[in-house]
Amino acid sequence: MVNDSKPGSHVFKRIAIFGVGLIGGSFALALKKAGAVQQVVGVGRSQASLQRAQELGIIDQIASSVEDAVCGADLILIAAPVAQTAAILMAMQPYLQTGTVVTDAGSTKADVVAAARQAMGQKLAQFVPAHPIAGRELNGPDAALVDLYAGKKIVITRLPENSADDVNLVANAWQQCGAIIHHLSPAEHDAVFAAVSHLPHLLAYALVDDIARKPHAERLFQYAASGFRDFTRIAGSSPEMWRDISLANRDAMLQELDSYTAQLGRLRAHLLAGDAQAIEAIYSNAQLARHNWITAIETAEKQRKDGGD
Amino acid sequence: MVNDSKPGSHVFKRIAIFGVGLIGGSFALALKKAGAVQQVVGVGRSQASLQRAQELGIIDQIASSVEDAVCGADLILIAAPVAQTAAILMAMQPYLQTGTVVTDAGSTKADVVAAARQAMGQKLAQFVPAHPIAGRELNGPDAALVDLYAGKKIVITRLPENSADDVNLVANAWQQCGAIIHHLSPAEHDAVFAAVSHLPHLLAYALVDDIARKPHAERLFQYAASGFRDFTRIAGSSPEMWRDISLANRDAMLQELDSYTAQLGRLRAHLLAGDAQAIEAIYSNAQLARHNWITAIETAEKQRKDGGD
Repeated sequence: MVNDSKPGSHVFKRIAIFGVGLIGGSFALALKKAGAVQQVVGVGRSQASLQRAQELGIIDQIASSVEDAVCGADLILIAAPVAQTAAILMAMQPYLQTGTVVTDAGSTKADVVAAARQAMGQKLAQFVPAHPIAGRELNGPDAALVDLYAGKKIVITRLPENSADDVNLVANAWQQCGAIIHHLSPAEHDAVFAAVSHLPHLLAYALVDDIARKPHAERLFQYAASGFRDFTRIAGSSPEMWRDISLANRDAMLQELDSYTAQLGRLRAHLLAGDAQAIEAIYSNAQLARHNWITAIETAEKQRKDGGD
Repeated sequence: MVNDSKPGSHVFKRIAIFGVGLIGGSFALALKKAGAVQQVVGVGRSQASLQRAQELGIIDQIASSVEDAVCGADLILIAAPVAQTAAILMAMQPYLQTGTVVTDAGSTKADVVAAARQAMGQKLAQFVPAHPIAGRELNGPDAALVDLYAGKKIVITRLPENSADDVNLVANAWQQCGAIIHHLSPAEHDAVFAAVSHLPHLLAYALVDDIARKPHAERLFQYAASGFRDFTRIAGSSPEMWRDISLANRDAMLQELDSYTAQLGRLRAHLLAGDAQAIEAIYSNAQLARHNWITAIETAEKQRKDGGD
């Protein structure tokens, strides 16, 4: 479900960001540029990152404690590695005031919702789970970009407990970053991203590791070219982050991995049989599907730019 | 084995190119820019492509027949889809004069060498097999680029029958296109490229086809983002060409596919067991190996540019 309505110009008084790296930092920069926030306060594990974020103008203030970060905020974004979400929710819960809305940026949603149900107690309705579909291989405040979310999708996986106002508030913040709001259930979200993001990451890591462990790895890398570079780009991503995502979305990952392994088994049989027609049918269908997908993306991108905002 | 010697300024009188698309066209454009050829004659299945190549200044003349193309050429490049190599060699063999050197640009080499042994008879020594490691997803004369080969590797898989002079002549032509000459045996070549190029293509095609056949394919593609785009870029390549390569290099492909499938089996077991440490070990090793590879490429690229030619 897509929501294409234009954002109103809600101005947030105080936004607290847990994790001032690429995702949280870009959120802050975009909202500041849009004039949508008066004050951004940062909180996180690394004092160096917080200081750097302050130098870069991403945050206005470093919180002295979780209590300090949370009190008085109208919106809180959790943009830390997804395995830390439960602990962060638990830590903030006691200080969370009525009227403060909490959201997150985790790449998996069913596990985040389960963690919220455990951690938030009576305040569960204040948590609106979401996932911005944007990223780079770089991390940290220096990687943050003011336009990281321009034209990108944000998937909100709202809880039955959430009020429409709170969901709209989260949607409004992301829309003011230039993003487009989509809605899925947590299970739908996790199944979709297992197929188009999480499995490809596993496949890319698996290939590079497999090659790197071969006795003649050095010669193999010597002849790897641009096709290999693009195919494995996502294997340059943070191993810690993708380990967490792989485990957090384990059931959907296993299902997609089994589907893919069966597909490789079919291709193996066609190769062994020298079945040129069957191989070409798979390659052609893939090429066509990808072509149609790219065309659809480019058309949407053009419409967005022509729409001009 | 690498040969880094600077190219002499050999000027070819007449070069015949079978297949005036991306590969053959870029070769002609680069040699013309270097002043390394007086006349380029084109031959191929498609009259439209030949005419377009002439309009673009890629070729000076369209051959009226294979005999016309071959006679008087000092160098012949076969740049047609690899499955046509045997038929092209067979067709030119009767007209091939002493002193003419034939080379090819096929992505597989053991099958090309086998075809040459069948087709060339007493003239086998005149065929020097080679493979330029460069490409784009686009095909045809309009895709040809004058600098496609600048800084790229050319793998020559010389035959025991080849004379040093003939090998050097082929190497010289490619060096004048800005390429760097490497030498491997046909079997070494095919094993290397099965791992770093042919298997990744199969894996990318397999994933896109697998997704495209799912009942909820439309939703999946809707949420696919830049990671998916890069991972599957090579699935935009010509299905016919990659069907031929897959079958031509079948034995090495099957070996690499089995190695990779075993790797996926190990990852599946780690996922199922929730073994975070084992998953992270694979992801981290892959990330590090890729980082080292990219660093080595960038260093080599910088040295090449600083060397200035």
